[in-house]
Amino acid sequence: MAAEPLLERLIDALRCLPGVGPKSAQRMALHLLERDREGGRHLSAVLDAAMERIGRCRECRNLTEEERCAICANPQRDASLLCVVESPSDVIAIEQATGYQGRYFVLLGRLSPLDGVGPADLGLDSLAERLASAPPAEIIIATNPTVEGEATAYYLQRMAQKQGIAVSRIAHGVPLGGELEFTDQSTIAHAFSSRQTVPS
Amino acid sequence: MAAEPLLERLIDALRCLPGVGPKSAQRMALHLLERDREGGRHLSAVLDAAMERIGRCRECRNLTEEERCAICANPQRDASLLCVVESPSDVIAIEQATGYQGRYFVLLGRLSPLDGVGPADLGLDSLAERLASAPPAEIIIATNPTVEGEATAYYLQRMAQKQGIAVSRIAHGVPLGGELEFTDQSTIAHAFSSRQTVPS
Repeated sequence: MAAEPLLERLIDALRCLPGVGPKSAQRMALHLLERDREGGRHLSAVLDAAMERIGRCRECRNLTEEERCAICANPQRDASLLCVVESPSDVIAIEQATGYQGRYFVLLGRLSPLDGVGPADLGLDSLAERLASAPPAEIIIATNPTVEGEATAYYLQRMAQKQGIAVSRIAHGVPLGGELEFTDQSTIAHAFSSRQTVPS
Repeated sequence: MAAEPLLERLIDALRCLPGVGPKSAQRMALHLLERDREGGRHLSAVLDAAMERIGRCRECRNLTEEERCAICANPQRDASLLCVVESPSDVIAIEQATGYQGRYFVLLGRLSPLDGVGPADLGLDSLAERLASAPPAEIIIATNPTVEGEATAYYLQRMAQKQGIAVSRIAHGVPLGGELEFTDQSTIAHAFSSRQTVPS
């Protein structure tokens, strides 16, 4: 007889998912067992395959089970534009929101010397080689506007300018639909100082 | 090359969990892939084992991977008390909140003729046999106070009384810590009509 019932082990294992506490884990386990065994089996199989087979794209470091991800392998994508982001979810967000047709480079992190995360951990050495061997026309920096994200952006900017590549950064400011009254002070200050002349 | 990338299939598969929409599924998939592959592998293995091996207890119909669940197999539990509940989560809730030392019977549903759920689907035929062959001293009905739960409770009550078994129901009323002002009308009406004399 097992030390701990399988149901309790399942509830426990579900808690590795982010945002899932004991109550939700219990609800998930009972839901699958009582109403959706097929879904549970399917999830188990896909999860196992994903954990084993998904690695990083050789070129852009995005998550993929192929050697090159679908974007890098797509000859239709414009190789003269390179957008640098922190994580795979940023790629998904940009793909869903924009019509961007260039390539990406995924850092999978951000420079953070205090946590021991240096340029090599973010693949910036391989990015430097890529910039030297096949320089794009423009690099679009889309790191997050946090302290570490800003440091990473500055590092990337210097790297690109050393190769004479044009650098741009996505705009930061008051979000659309947002109200000034409820926007934090630093965002307002940034939006104010980055104001753009309206062509007449 | 697969039709759909494995990452998207994983995000899709995670949506079989209750309360998980596209955004949370994406967050879960990326979290496991980027930070907790070990947890993901473990979850996959336990999930598979649970879906294959967890069945119903021969005696009480609760979920278990054994032939008899831990409660039914425990000789310390008082066989003269039988608490009837709708679902396995009710068993967990009662076990956590009370010091109840009797046995359970889990309906895994409630009588609902409109949905085609009759007494046989809830194992009430096997419960009737059990009441006839080894009658407990008391049956505690703990179905939920909904229309179907009440109908189920009434059915159980008649079944037990036919065998001359004492029947009790857990109390319904204003929850502890609740305020009358914010309690719904039917609960207040029920609490009022079920008022109990205070011994002097």
